[in-house]
Amino acid sequence: MTLPNMLQIAPLLSACRAGTLMPTDIVREVAARVDAYAAKDPAVWISRVPMERLLARAAELERLPAADLPLYGIPFAVKDNIDVAGLPTTAACPAFAYEPRESAEVIKRLEAAGAIVIGKTNLDQFATGLVGMRSPYGQPHCVFNADYVSGGSSSGSAVAVAAGLVSFSLGTDTAGSGRVPAAFNNIVGLKPSRGVLSTYGLVPACESLDCISVFAGSTTDAWEVEQVAGAADARAPFSRTFSPRSLPLTTFRFGVLSAEDRFFDGNEANAALYAQAIKRLEQLGGTPVELDFAPLKETAALLYSGPFVVERLAAIKDFYHAHRKDMDPTVGTIIDGAANYTATDVFDGIYRQHALQQIAQCMWDDFDVMLLPTAPRIVTKQEVIEQPIAANSLLGAYTNFVNLLDMAACAVPAGFAPDGLPFGVTFIAPAFTDEDLAALAGRFHEALGEAIGAARTEKPDISAKLEISSSGRVLLAVVGAHLKGFPLHWQLEKENAVLRETTRTAPYYRLFALPDATPPKPGLVREAGFTGAGLEVEVYELDAAGFGRFVASVPQPMSIGRITLADGKEVCGFLCSEAVARSGTDITATGGWRSYMQKK
Amino acid sequence: MTLPNMLQIAPLLSACRAGTLMPTDIVREVAARVDAYAAKDPAVWISRVPMERLLARAAELERLPAADLPLYGIPFAVKDNIDVAGLPTTAACPAFAYEPRESAEVIKRLEAAGAIVIGKTNLDQFATGLVGMRSPYGQPHCVFNADYVSGGSSSGSAVAVAAGLVSFSLGTDTAGSGRVPAAFNNIVGLKPSRGVLSTYGLVPACESLDCISVFAGSTTDAWEVEQVAGAADARAPFSRTFSPRSLPLTTFRFGVLSAEDRFFDGNEANAALYAQAIKRLEQLGGTPVELDFAPLKETAALLYSGPFVVERLAAIKDFYHAHRKDMDPTVGTIIDGAANYTATDVFDGIYRQHALQQIAQCMWDDFDVMLLPTAPRIVTKQEVIEQPIAANSLLGAYTNFVNLLDMAACAVPAGFAPDGLPFGVTFIAPAFTDEDLAALAGRFHEALGEAIGAARTEKPDISAKLEISSSGRVLLAVVGAHLKGFPLHWQLEKENAVLRETTRTAPYYRLFALPDATPPKPGLVREAGFTGAGLEVEVYELDAAGFGRFVASVPQPMSIGRITLADGKEVCGFLCSEAVARSGTDITATGGWRSYMQKK
Repeated sequence: MTLPNMLQIAPLLSACRAGTLMPTDIVREVAARVDAYAAKDPAVWISRVPMERLLARAAELERLPAADLPLYGIPFAVKDNIDVAGLPTTAACPAFAYEPRESAEVIKRLEAAGAIVIGKTNLDQFATGLVGMRSPYGQPHCVFNADYVSGGSSSGSAVAVAAGLVSFSLGTDTAGSGRVPAAFNNIVGLKPSRGVLSTYGLVPACESLDCISVFAGSTTDAWEVEQVAGAADARAPFSRTFSPRSLPLTTFRFGVLSAEDRFFDGNEANAALYAQAIKRLEQLGGTPVELDFAPLKETAALLYSGPFVVERLAAIKDFYHAHRKDMDPTVGTIIDGAANYTATDVFDGIYRQHALQQIAQCMWDDFDVMLLPTAPRIVTKQEVIEQPIAANSLLGAYTNFVNLLDMAACAVPAGFAPDGLPFGVTFIAPAFTDEDLAALAGRFHEALGEAIGAARTEKPDISAKLEISSSGRVLLAVVGAHLKGFPLHWQLEKENAVLRETTRTAPYYRLFALPDATPPKPGLVREAGFTGAGLEVEVYELDAAGFGRFVASVPQPMSIGRITLADGKEVCGFLCSEAVARSGTDITATGGWRSYMQKK
Repeated sequence: MTLPNMLQIAPLLSACRAGTLMPTDIVREVAARVDAYAAKDPAVWISRVPMERLLARAAELERLPAADLPLYGIPFAVKDNIDVAGLPTTAACPAFAYEPRESAEVIKRLEAAGAIVIGKTNLDQFATGLVGMRSPYGQPHCVFNADYVSGGSSSGSAVAVAAGLVSFSLGTDTAGSGRVPAAFNNIVGLKPSRGVLSTYGLVPACESLDCISVFAGSTTDAWEVEQVAGAADARAPFSRTFSPRSLPLTTFRFGVLSAEDRFFDGNEANAALYAQAIKRLEQLGGTPVELDFAPLKETAALLYSGPFVVERLAAIKDFYHAHRKDMDPTVGTIIDGAANYTATDVFDGIYRQHALQQIAQCMWDDFDVMLLPTAPRIVTKQEVIEQPIAANSLLGAYTNFVNLLDMAACAVPAGFAPDGLPFGVTFIAPAFTDEDLAALAGRFHEALGEAIGAARTEKPDISAKLEISSSGRVLLAVVGAHLKGFPLHWQLEKENAVLRETTRTAPYYRLFALPDATPPKPGLVREAGFTGAGLEVEVYELDAAGFGRFVASVPQPMSIGRITLADGKEVCGFLCSEAVARSGTDITATGGWRSYMQKK
């Protein structure tokens, strides 16, 4: 099998499972691509897994059942601040390099799922930067134009995916390092909620904020990787159990920059692409709402122009004091800034962070998700050489606040400017919405219609998402007083239920108008052997707690059980005591409660 | 009506609602008691609401309907680091005092519920201390012996309740200030989960850790006050929405100190009382499990012998630099210690705090709640004068770690030593278990059988708690394969369901053994007009999310609706398609699935 230019997970996995592709083929092809790309850009990798180890890993996988492993044979790259046993961890600082005794927790989980580490990628030293220029291992460049930066700090990881060298890669994201380089290379960058991916085995940048992040060709792939890599880990101080939160995905409100906050540093093409992105999201069911950018901007300033800089020193204090001269000059200068802050400044900064979190929390009353540019514009390498700090700050204008405010983010492509350089947008929502955020960003990415990565030959594989979620959400079919516009619909709204589908039940159901019900209600009854036309239902999605509260409030004679829909899918839904229902009027022939009530 | 010695809420409220007691009577009686107690201990209050304002407030209440206000006419005291409009806030430091423009959020909520502020109480300056000796407004003493400290820092608040001057009081608790003085005065001290009670209008001690706390005669009263006072508040940086978590209340495991960790500083009587408390809790359904105290001890050290001391300086930095000489010498010395810590020390301390939180989190796998001494022993005023810091540290041995590890705590009396001085224990559990924690501590307090406060004439009013909780938990009756010992019981265990009751349904239900069910299952059907003996059910409590997940997994032909129990109470429970059930065997006469299966 000839591999596609972009190594998205689904085609590789199906071919492996079908036996038309072997992990050995994959590692050989990947190694060849890595070699070939080195001629174009030699700065992508800091270290590589030797060919004989790749072949041994492939052979090991070939003894395992492909069907059981969700990432069987999938090649990936690892930012070189994350430990992989057998390769040095450099954090892009040779004097700091060490040989880790074990792999980071996320690596272990991905390998256990069948994925194959190809090597360690270049980064801004100590993950301090958004440019990809602060490394003694060279400066990767944008896959579309060698005069432009790749973005950073996860520079090599983004390029490795965009150039089709690997299926996905791990980056890290404190200030935007998992998003900015995705935008500059026409791929997806998923920044999970803080604490979902264990940071055990990560060289910290700002330990209270750092997130391991995922680059991939599609949001579907990125979320799949997050699911495999994520798990609570008591060895990671900021680890948290993933408690999924839903977002409305069909009709929703999204926060956008007001006209005066639309800063693109003079790049009119990007301004137009952002406006187009807003229009596109409106077509997908969104209503734009102007957001107040001031508190987000104030939050962002805490990171590099405030006491959180001290975390970068705390992360490498001993090394810094012994080896300051061995550091990248710009990174060294930034970390020197930690000396400007006292111990009380740190607490004052944390208090301000929490006060701003409260303000940001109130913003979610106005909209469900934010749609922001990922970066105002891409910059040239020459600009960064001339203004190493100012050019970097420009890139973080729309990313720096996200981790300080405990949000999840998903950067996706948003088209190309006439100069051939890509533009990206980022979807941002509260912590633990990761799955829905990726799904919504994926719908946008799919609707964009652009092919991904450097080659621009394949479109992103976005898998449809409308089923009972693995992460604890529930689909509920309603047939009567809870339908939209009916008297009990507010009970669904109160639990933030989201309409997923209007459809019909399977044919073997009857509907009865209940006698003496206030408000008027029907009762749905399953009758084996009966064949009708099915009854109209609206299918809502709720999170488990909302569903639980909803069920607990359902009065006699109603109950909640499984209902089979016209397409054979089973969802939760309203049933009724058969004795009570059959004492009412059979209204099955009307096709449903809405049409019965209209005719009545 | 003659008021009881201890002003518990229920009798006052019922008398007010019955019209046999008026708020005016209450404020007159309270004022008389406050005056009388001043002869015994003049150091309880820093300021008092003048009599004419109390009478005006009473008159205002008398124009409102008593039945609508949950704390109608209930008098309370406020620690003088919490703003009450019209009274100065001193934090026990005259040079710091100011006139607040508005009351703290918690005061507003309590007043809106009908409660009456009586005055502001003494405290260790800036809430820095556990002794109650660090105040220029005098040193309140233990209500049982004037040679002994009252405990602090919420010294006056605890004494005001224990002496029967008010029904409840607000304290604050950073290191144990809401618990230690409860133990020393034979009352309850409820330390809510962090962020549940707004700190808007509180002079901070350690802003990231401070909790406003409640002193009362019973856990029932304390929880009632927490419920009224608690609400998310965007103006409080560390505010959190209360997401209730359940604890098992009938059978449970509780962590206890191992023999070598049972440190009472030589007080054998307290050692014996702690051992008795463990036995008592075993009799209430608990199984003791030895806990590892080392990580808790390490956490505690972060507070006063670590970088969290810096928060105490951050809280009053400008005042400290201008007025260091105007501070209590011991408090000043403690805050001077902040100068020993650098900015990176602060982040290192926060990282260690989070690492210890992960360790502590794992402890909950071994037990549901901890039972610790509230303090090793009470100390004399003379001891504190001689060793102001060491004597204080002794008192915090079992309290300091709680807020750093994000736990809730409820201190209750645990008997008296032969010298006539009280001993207390504290129940500690994860954040957001506040309601169940108070309920469990209340069962212990009730079982103790001791009367409360200084007078020791009335027992605590503990209201029974076995109903659908207002805070979002759900009762579920199971009748078949989910019963304890049956094949699907694990589905309840997985969701941490807690058995609340084994009982029977109302008489109008039939039970059928379903044909072809794997595992074997019965179906419960309601039949109007039928009168049987009821069927055996087990009633479990789950939180809403666990219940939601559970319901979502219930397959056809089962469903979840309302079931009426023998006592007339309605709970959620398993129902079954009547058509399917009636195709099986009627086993109603066996009395339930368990006896049917045993006989079978």
